[in-house]
Amino acid sequence: MTTRRQVNVGILSSVAAVAAATTGFAQQPQAIDLLPPALEGGKSLMQSLKDRQSIRDYSDRALPQQTLSNLLWAAWGVNRPQSDGRTAPHWRNVYALDVFLAMADGVWRYEPKNHKIIFHMAGDLRAQTTIGQAFVATAPLNLVYAFDMSKLTGTTESEKIAAAAACVAMVGENVYLYCASAGLATVFRQSVPGEALAKALKLPPAQIIQFAQTVGYPKT
Amino acid sequence: MTTRRQVNVGILSSVAAVAAATTGFAQQPQAIDLLPPALEGGKSLMQSLKDRQSIRDYSDRALPQQTLSNLLWAAWGVNRPQSDGRTAPHWRNVYALDVFLAMADGVWRYEPKNHKIIFHMAGDLRAQTTIGQAFVATAPLNLVYAFDMSKLTGTTESEKIAAAAACVAMVGENVYLYCASAGLATVFRQSVPGEALAKALKLPPAQIIQFAQTVGYPKT
Repeated sequence: MTTRRQVNVGILSSVAAVAAATTGFAQQPQAIDLLPPALEGGKSLMQSLKDRQSIRDYSDRALPQQTLSNLLWAAWGVNRPQSDGRTAPHWRNVYALDVFLAMADGVWRYEPKNHKIIFHMAGDLRAQTTIGQAFVATAPLNLVYAFDMSKLTGTTESEKIAAAAACVAMVGENVYLYCASAGLATVFRQSVPGEALAKALKLPPAQIIQFAQTVGYPKT
Repeated sequence: MTTRRQVNVGILSSVAAVAAATTGFAQQPQAIDLLPPALEGGKSLMQSLKDRQSIRDYSDRALPQQTLSNLLWAAWGVNRPQSDGRTAPHWRNVYALDVFLAMADGVWRYEPKNHKIIFHMAGDLRAQTTIGQAFVATAPLNLVYAFDMSKLTGTTESEKIAAAAACVAMVGENVYLYCASAGLATVFRQSVPGEALAKALKLPPAQIIQFAQTVGYPKT
């Protein structure tokens, strides 16, 4: 039987092993090259849409490295390298979204351009990404969407809020569909303590958090 | 060569022919049963994500009835009939979104529960769904997303705006991916004269329009 602690250690130790091999940082890896995303196979789009749903019961089983790679690429990866085009649209050619990964052993940030995750800070912040949803604390991954509002100009405050939410939600729908395709569970959540979480993540004031999304295996 | 007028007539006349056969309303069909969506075939999810992009050059070629059926089901269709589950999530069990279809010969509303389109009003309102984007007026379909804000309760105004935008954008991302899968062109747009358009569509005051989305074939 795998205990949660073993799983938690597993996430970072396998990552750290890769880091040690590639960067020399054994204790605190700075950046991890993700595996190339697997673009072949998986369900059809229509079948993924058929199976899309919100799930709130999670196993604490860790996500395999290939699955994490596929998930992040599907979410917000580069699909047209010549123009830095992404799998979800962005607002008027402005890249304002950072996708953070809150996992048991720390917080990482996805870097789409090089398909890497960058170490952001130590500590298990998963429980801090929700207002009162118990399943969040033990699911292996919570994506935290941070949007830099200072990059949206020439529009009203209300339109900025809507634009930020729309950009994030399109990434969130990609995550839903990838999870449906791969047999994973996910739920997109507005029940996020945005200001407190932004502070805990030491984000600059312009970066706001409206939404988070839990990802893992469904509880069997 | 097919002129635009022929194509425009084509959309309604084929719809009207179906209506005449099924409901007896030859002049002004009230509701059209869409064909069942084709859930088999099409690209994989990952290939659809690879091909997702925004396109702003459209042919005026009409959308086939099967394509319109697939598109609307992918966007916001019922994927779990027992619970009225949809292909995109909705906010706290509240169904607040109406998807209108602005086409050459009138405006229709998608009814996911019965996979129908309901005739809403006569007139070509396509050009009225944009602020200054010329391609909008001649693409065969503009989806107009209307969200009933009165159905969101117990949260702040800013969170309501974000929730509405997120619900709409997830539907919009489904449309992006279906278009990528089917070789169609689409662009999700915030450049919408929301208040004027809501008035033109005779919507109740609580229904707001933040976004629209153009769909058609790419110009060859």
